[in-house]
Amino acid sequence: MSFVGVDWGTSSLRAYLIDDTGAILDQRSGRDGISKTSGQWEQTLLRYIGDWVDTGVHDVVLSGMITSRQGWVETPYVSLPADAMRIAEEMVHRRVAGLDLWFAPGLAFERDASTVDVIRGEETQILGQLAEDSSGTSLIILPGSHSKWVLIDGGTVTWFSTFLTGELFNAIAEHTLLRTTLSDKSSKKAFVEGVTLGSASETGEGGILHKLFSLRVRALDNPNGAVSKDLLAGLILGTEIREATQQLARLPSAYVIGNSVLARQYITAMETSGLAVELGNEDAAAAGLFKLFQDRKVPSGL
Amino acid sequence: MSFVGVDWGTSSLRAYLIDDTGAILDQRSGRDGISKTSGQWEQTLLRYIGDWVDTGVHDVVLSGMITSRQGWVETPYVSLPADAMRIAEEMVHRRVAGLDLWFAPGLAFERDASTVDVIRGEETQILGQLAEDSSGTSLIILPGSHSKWVLIDGGTVTWFSTFLTGELFNAIAEHTLLRTTLSDKSSKKAFVEGVTLGSASETGEGGILHKLFSLRVRALDNPNGAVSKDLLAGLILGTEIREATQQLARLPSAYVIGNSVLARQYITAMETSGLAVELGNEDAAAAGLFKLFQDRKVPSGL
Repeated sequence: MSFVGVDWGTSSLRAYLIDDTGAILDQRSGRDGISKTSGQWEQTLLRYIGDWVDTGVHDVVLSGMITSRQGWVETPYVSLPADAMRIAEEMVHRRVAGLDLWFAPGLAFERDASTVDVIRGEETQILGQLAEDSSGTSLIILPGSHSKWVLIDGGTVTWFSTFLTGELFNAIAEHTLLRTTLSDKSSKKAFVEGVTLGSASETGEGGILHKLFSLRVRALDNPNGAVSKDLLAGLILGTEIREATQQLARLPSAYVIGNSVLARQYITAMETSGLAVELGNEDAAAAGLFKLFQDRKVPSGL
Repeated sequence: MSFVGVDWGTSSLRAYLIDDTGAILDQRSGRDGISKTSGQWEQTLLRYIGDWVDTGVHDVVLSGMITSRQGWVETPYVSLPADAMRIAEEMVHRRVAGLDLWFAPGLAFERDASTVDVIRGEETQILGQLAEDSSGTSLIILPGSHSKWVLIDGGTVTWFSTFLTGELFNAIAEHTLLRTTLSDKSSKKAFVEGVTLGSASETGEGGILHKLFSLRVRALDNPNGAVSKDLLAGLILGTEIREATQQLARLPSAYVIGNSVLARQYITAMETSGLAVELGNEDAAAAGLFKLFQDRKVPSGL
């Protein structure tokens, strides 16, 4: 029996029609993220998947910010360590308009009482990548506005950390003095130089607050008074890599999820830092939604 | 004989009438920074100091962005190590409308071929603070959008480092998701907590990219979904302190220049990090301009 998997984030919605082998039969996406849809949950969902429902599909697994306090149904955070079975069991079930809806929980990682990190949405991509190889230890990197590094051990999520990388890049590039210093001219050389600077140790080159100012000085030295924006992108990404790898005792085989320009930049940045990494499953979210569907706990009476 | 000292930056202009003992006889300031005044240099200056000139004053020492490529007369950077005499000697002299104008040079610190840091304007504050105590080793901290830490050894500037602290705070507070997370409610407790988080080691709490995201998570835990903006201010300032102190083999007696809210926040932040620090000379810029005037090299023929 087919089901529908929905990755419903802040700014977009993506729906997959998935058969009982996990194959994606159909998919569609749009800009109806929760920030735009507030309150119109059922109508919006049916606008995307109504014709699939008409063919008899009635199970829908939803993940992403749709399960947050601002979304349709708030779900709990599952504390680490967590495997697919535990995450699936914590899904919140609702019956709406004849559909069985399953809302995925987020993940919470408490290092200690005062330091908590959270994931909401990316757990499906993690589970999807896990489905490909759940035997050993691996690292999954999910690039984005809030980039996540996730450690997996024998099919269980044991550690993760979030970095404000994408948002910080935009804020600096557009809203500091560096704005007038950065040119839009793309440059892989500048990107690699930035990664090298960002990942350099703080005791050598100083920390990020100083390195950011150093971009300004570099620009003053250039005839046109500018440096490529890719130098800043590399610097921020290199900083993320340095911060993340400092937290890890060793680096297992690493996967970067997605096939976006950003994901490929991560590959370049990781390789610049001497770290081996592969592109992960591009359809990881759909594969993870399928895993959640398979492992769901059906309430008695259904 | 009195002279005029002018601290002319990007967004403001401050002029001092100073007598031959270094006492400030009069001062005035306004928003006629170089970004607003472009090209109208002489008229603007005379608007501020014309009545002083009418009483017979004819020497004017100028520092700040007025000596940059975008300013009136571009001056060189003096490389470290540099003492007051060397800085004064590198001033560029111009005779304009019967006035003798002396444009102060900036300072450049080359750690190595690829890593250069620069100062333009703050050198007067540094010289002014030096005038108070130039015997031993001390650290001068100049808070601001681009905060500077400057090391002085026996009257000579031997090291400095710039941090994009103020600008980064504004960019993050106003142009990332944290915007919706930060309340304007002032809180010294939150500030101190932020400093502690920011100055904590990267191997323990992670780096700044992760700590920034952690503010978001803290807010989710609060009933009103927000944390004080002072938590972010403390985090960024604590990061600066950690970065800067990592670069220094030891911490000599430290002075924070100015008497602004920001300068007092630095004192609190330094003390939170267990570092002793005093407020420095509030009129350091005027004292430094006086020192430059005393040490100027008068061209032959004047």
